[in-house]
Amino acid sequence: MSGPDPEPTPTATTTGGAAALAQATPGFPAPDPHTPQDALSARMAFLAEADRLKTVLRASLLSDGSRRENSGEHSWHVALYALVLADHAGPEVDIDRVIRMLLIHDLVEIDAGDHPIHGHNHDAAAQELAERAAATRLFGMLPPAQGAALRALWDEFEAAETPSAQFAKSLDRVQPVVQNLVVDGGPWERFGVTWDKLAQRVGRPIARGAPALWDWVAPRVRAWFDRNG
Amino acid sequence: MSGPDPEPTPTATTTGGAAALAQATPGFPAPDPHTPQDALSARMAFLAEADRLKTVLRASLLSDGSRRENSGEHSWHVALYALVLADHAGPEVDIDRVIRMLLIHDLVEIDAGDHPIHGHNHDAAAQELAERAAATRLFGMLPPAQGAALRALWDEFEAAETPSAQFAKSLDRVQPVVQNLVVDGGPWERFGVTWDKLAQRVGRPIARGAPALWDWVAPRVRAWFDRNG
Repeated sequence: MSGPDPEPTPTATTTGGAAALAQATPGFPAPDPHTPQDALSARMAFLAEADRLKTVLRASLLSDGSRRENSGEHSWHVALYALVLADHAGPEVDIDRVIRMLLIHDLVEIDAGDHPIHGHNHDAAAQELAERAAATRLFGMLPPAQGAALRALWDEFEAAETPSAQFAKSLDRVQPVVQNLVVDGGPWERFGVTWDKLAQRVGRPIARGAPALWDWVAPRVRAWFDRNG
Repeated sequence: MSGPDPEPTPTATTTGGAAALAQATPGFPAPDPHTPQDALSARMAFLAEADRLKTVLRASLLSDGSRRENSGEHSWHVALYALVLADHAGPEVDIDRVIRMLLIHDLVEIDAGDHPIHGHNHDAAAQELAERAAATRLFGMLPPAQGAALRALWDEFEAAETPSAQFAKSLDRVQPVVQNLVVDGGPWERFGVTWDKLAQRVGRPIARGAPALWDWVAPRVRAWFDRNG
């Protein structure tokens, strides 16, 4: 199968929605998140900047195989997973908190790009540094109290220690697995993924936060690798 | 400006993610939402079907002007609007309920397509019928109690009578206005929109659910029409 280019597509950080909004609208004040009367302008600039997540491409395909998925629509899809799969979460999981986490979990990719979990030349330490810098810049666009609250939510997701964060991580990991089943392989073929690698890198975090989802998906994935591995 | 084709792109309703998932995964049971032990399979089939919202194109462009926005990534963006603009909602608005509404508000477009608010040949009654049929089919894929709850949430959004639904509608209307400001016109030029039309069709619902947002955006939009109208 000749799939699309598996490399992530970093986007430029010097131009973008917020700058364009300021330029296109002469009445737009320079956002200063420390000035209370500008809180709404700062939020609108943040939301315009967030639009750029729609241009960050992931390894996964849409379920019709027509193109790669972007991180904006992926964020919607996993938030919908949380809403629909709430009954399969543990009793300590706060689904609305999970949804909020998933809405913001990939914003750092605007600066740091998407790094496919099965990709090569993956420098986890450099990626983590880039993502933390991105979080500082992006959440720093908001009024300070709100920026700190969303940064704390993103940190909670990344740490994957609370039940809500672990469930959110499970959904973020299981969604591309389902997409790959639907397109009959996709990135698994391109990256030469094996059942053992998948169970280790993806199965463990899914099972940790949502055992019922791993129980559902694992035999289907195993059957795919038995046929294609 | 030579923009992309403003017509909506309806997608086929006979094939799609759920059918592909069943076909690609031999262990996948035929989803029967009335059988409790198949609740998870029904939910996964619904989520695979929902993926198709990423192929429904809207009139709005991304803020870099590179392409039209799809309804999946739009749904993420407006849910993020709700999270970030919560301080500008009235005291009776339940933000988590608004976010849930916005995650599902456009799903009916999988069958019924997107109808640009400024488009021509717009048969509102036919569109409403098509959307209701789509809601029946899509939410009907879920276990009955869950399908009924999400259908009620969608009905609440459509009716725009509760404070939460009115705030959600405001966000759904203001987001493309901001996108159009960022790209310096976009659909406004293609559809020949005037300030009066915009204030009537878009300004009123925005002001109804979120007066502060209309106060913020109206002078910027007015200035754009003064320069370009």
